[in-house]
Amino acid sequence: MAEFKFRMRMTVGDVIAVGPGKIALLEALAETGSITAAAKSLGMSYRRAWLLIDELNSALREPAVSTAQGGAKGGGSKLTPQGEQLVALYREIEARALAHCEEPIDQLLRMLR
Amino acid sequence: MAEFKFRMRMTVGDVIAVGPGKIALLEALAETGSITAAAKSLGMSYRRAWLLIDELNSALREPAVSTAQGGAKGGGSKLTPQGEQLVALYREIEARALAHCEEPIDQLLRMLR
Repeated sequence: MAEFKFRMRMTVGDVIAVGPGKIALLEALAETGSITAAAKSLGMSYRRAWLLIDELNSALREPAVSTAQGGAKGGGSKLTPQGEQLVALYREIEARALAHCEEPIDQLLRMLR
Repeated sequence: MAEFKFRMRMTVGDVIAVGPGKIALLEALAETGSITAAAKSLGMSYRRAWLLIDELNSALREPAVSTAQGGAKGGGSKLTPQGEQLVALYREIEARALAHCEEPIDQLLRMLR
């Protein structure tokens, strides 16, 4: 079944500061409350998830993820208000783009076998 | 300098039938008139360009590229009317999406350092 998708990126020079992978990771983190569980749910290593979040936090004025320290099992991680805003804006752009492009998207899909 | 980009994809099952790479290749082909020159202008091997075009043609009801046979240097390649329509629709979608998302895109860009 054919599917059309918008995938948005923000780049700073050669670095992809924000893209669909990082947004999916933030959403998984919001759902699971830990980087370990979020990484697992996306089939990603903990190390890769941690690096993506670190890269994202460095690219933003305010970090998207905060990690509580301490306790026997560590404190878990969660989205900051800025992280929540980032995800919301990304998904809003995706939804608006889809809503305003229904007709040419249909035409494009009809060109496929 | 931060930049926001829409990248659109059409997938059929696991296959990316159309994406930004194939559209850029079609545009380069329209400009240069040969797969060799188009591949070179994108820093891509001839083989890779040929495979992408073959994959694209197979995914479409009508091929996007036609290659003339014969002559000492071969006949060159060009976009079919369907290939031209594919590129035009893709760029129309990109332009419409950008036009309708200016405000949330600005908000997103302002979140970057």
